[in-house]
Amino acid sequence: MSIIVQKYGGTSVGDIEKIKNIAKKVVKTKRQGNKMVIVVSAMGKTTNQLVNMAHEITENPSEREMDVLLSTGEQITIALLAMAIENLGENVISLTGAQAGIITDSRHKKARIEEINTERLNCELNNNKIVIVAGFQGITKEGNISTLGRGGSDTSAVALACALKADMCEIYTDVPGVFTTDPRKVKTAKLMNEISYDEMLELAKLGAKVLHPRSVELARKYNLVLYVKSTFEEGKGTKVAGVNKMEKVLVRGVTIDENIARISVVDVPDHPGVAFNLFSHLAKNNIGIDMIIQNLDHNGKNDISFTVSTDDLNNAKNIANEFLQSVNGNTVIVKDDVCKLSIVGTGITGSAEVASKLFEILYKAGVNIEMISTSEIKISCLIDKKLGLEALNAVHEAFELGL
Amino acid sequence: MSIIVQKYGGTSVGDIEKIKNIAKKVVKTKRQGNKMVIVVSAMGKTTNQLVNMAHEITENPSEREMDVLLSTGEQITIALLAMAIENLGENVISLTGAQAGIITDSRHKKARIEEINTERLNCELNNNKIVIVAGFQGITKEGNISTLGRGGSDTSAVALACALKADMCEIYTDVPGVFTTDPRKVKTAKLMNEISYDEMLELAKLGAKVLHPRSVELARKYNLVLYVKSTFEEGKGTKVAGVNKMEKVLVRGVTIDENIARISVVDVPDHPGVAFNLFSHLAKNNIGIDMIIQNLDHNGKNDISFTVSTDDLNNAKNIANEFLQSVNGNTVIVKDDVCKLSIVGTGITGSAEVASKLFEILYKAGVNIEMISTSEIKISCLIDKKLGLEALNAVHEAFELGL
Repeated sequence: MSIIVQKYGGTSVGDIEKIKNIAKKVVKTKRQGNKMVIVVSAMGKTTNQLVNMAHEITENPSEREMDVLLSTGEQITIALLAMAIENLGENVISLTGAQAGIITDSRHKKARIEEINTERLNCELNNNKIVIVAGFQGITKEGNISTLGRGGSDTSAVALACALKADMCEIYTDVPGVFTTDPRKVKTAKLMNEISYDEMLELAKLGAKVLHPRSVELARKYNLVLYVKSTFEEGKGTKVAGVNKMEKVLVRGVTIDENIARISVVDVPDHPGVAFNLFSHLAKNNIGIDMIIQNLDHNGKNDISFTVSTDDLNNAKNIANEFLQSVNGNTVIVKDDVCKLSIVGTGITGSAEVASKLFEILYKAGVNIEMISTSEIKISCLIDKKLGLEALNAVHEAFELGL
Repeated sequence: MSIIVQKYGGTSVGDIEKIKNIAKKVVKTKRQGNKMVIVVSAMGKTTNQLVNMAHEITENPSEREMDVLLSTGEQITIALLAMAIENLGENVISLTGAQAGIITDSRHKKARIEEINTERLNCELNNNKIVIVAGFQGITKEGNISTLGRGGSDTSAVALACALKADMCEIYTDVPGVFTTDPRKVKTAKLMNEISYDEMLELAKLGAKVLHPRSVELARKYNLVLYVKSTFEEGKGTKVAGVNKMEKVLVRGVTIDENIARISVVDVPDHPGVAFNLFSHLAKNNIGIDMIIQNLDHNGKNDISFTVSTDDLNNAKNIANEFLQSVNGNTVIVKDDVCKLSIVGTGITGSAEVASKLFEILYKAGVNIEMISTSEIKISCLIDKKLGLEALNAVHEAFELGL
């Protein structure tokens, strides 16, 4: 008897009818002789409504109390889905994150799962029950409710599948799987049958919203095979697994991230440890930085430029200004009319051909490259936001990703 | 330093502005040098909205899953109230029923509190925090979320006050305290300064909705002094305590209960155990019966009449019919155009004068009495529903309760 973990996101459980439909899907798979664990998010707009209530009270609610508030969203969904499944005649039980044994650290609103105590989960599964688990949430060792932050429900599902040694983990969403690029932006975008963890991780980090990077990292670590599928259509979806079978095709996907801004700190003294000072302050404030460029070109002074998510822009700007004063720098320049175009594929950096082809395509499209960063399997270029869509289509076509 | 437990009901936390006002009240009392535990209900219509969602899925949701669903209502309130208090600069922490150590039996939707593990509560109080607890809910020994049923939040507050050996327990509601009768029905209704547990218990059982009987029973058992006060107006409210200082005044209050119906089982054989058989079936189905009359007047056959809450009428009728068939009785008659008028006061049954005066008032008002029941401190009469309001006013006036 296989253990299958399925995750349904906010749009998949958006209303009562959708919850009833998911109940049917779940029961069908159960009756094929499987043990089922279902992870769900809060219904559609519930989380936003809760956030708005909190903001009617205070601009800065404490993170602990926000977690108490937000975790009710998933708790409502688990109860309703359990009722819908009961109504179809199957044994079922709903569990909050705490009841499902999901233990996290105590960083509220962005907690990390430390361990999963599977005792109760296994007990309920062995009692032939379908287990519905509230995604996005857990409990700290001190007994406080925590939430996992962005991508939390994906992460809950993958972590549960790993802990239960599940045979399959399916992430259901509102699109049929992982595409070579955003199908809303490029008409010829193509559904991928299979993608490696590393490629998926880069695509996810670069703005492909279908899976959260945290969940992909966790799946890679435990070598858990993921399937990304549509809640609303039949289809095989995209398999995310370790081995990339298509060695020949180097470039697998292209993404664009518009939630990005560049910060430049101008005329910083060129002393050892100066850059470290800036970036450690950013890290302490949980601000992820992405591309970094340091120019050394004028009288022992540097310019340091880096990109951050627009969500973190205000915090990052303040930190950059504090840093500027502490080192007697000149000025901080923020540029937010930029976007980041990236190509992803195993072995990309081993192939000088791919990089030069990318730069050539952008040059021919009249797109200037402001910053470049590379990893094992991706090349990212910071470009003018106005030219993003045109560049995305040009790159997708030139690398023949739609074929 | 005194420990004060305060409870705010659904109308008191009906919207964000009301929650902010409660935060101010709480902080004021805290700054007078008290340790504070605040018990809250779900906001206004939240519970109804959740129930409606469940009923969109199924007519008969399981009680366990209903508890998972409903308990989110109070959880939302505790988080929002905690945020509002934080915003006023006080240390505060919200706790669900489970986190507050409220352990119940596993009768979902009508669980009874078995014990309260005060370790965490005391720890937070000693850390100088205002503790906000979700009323109406607890956790079973098996780790399932339970709710306490009607009057649950009052019961949570009283149980917490008893467990913490609180110096004061204040129940805040939308009226200024306990009245001699319903002020919406009798203009001269008067606020009582003080009332004994036994009298309050009878008033509560008889339809005075200001306090739930379960909470009064618990307070009496632990000799905990309760105060019933208005959330919206200043005032001393009503003190509920053991000793009735006003011995002279026998009749303290008069109530009317319109949610009542009479069921008569006609021509039942007069064998030992027959009535027991009927009432034990009703008890097994958690149907509370109130007045009982058994007439023995025709050829060895009885008529058994009893009253039940209209909420239980359908169930009770079915059980009465099953019973009728099992004993070859004649018929079951249901009468629901009745109401129960009751007078309450310590020592009432010791005074023949009070009973005869009551019957005289009703006679003069042209009200026929269908059934009578008495306890140590109350006399109840089942009368025609149409005459209820008139009778209530006549009795309130004749016993000079408004003076």
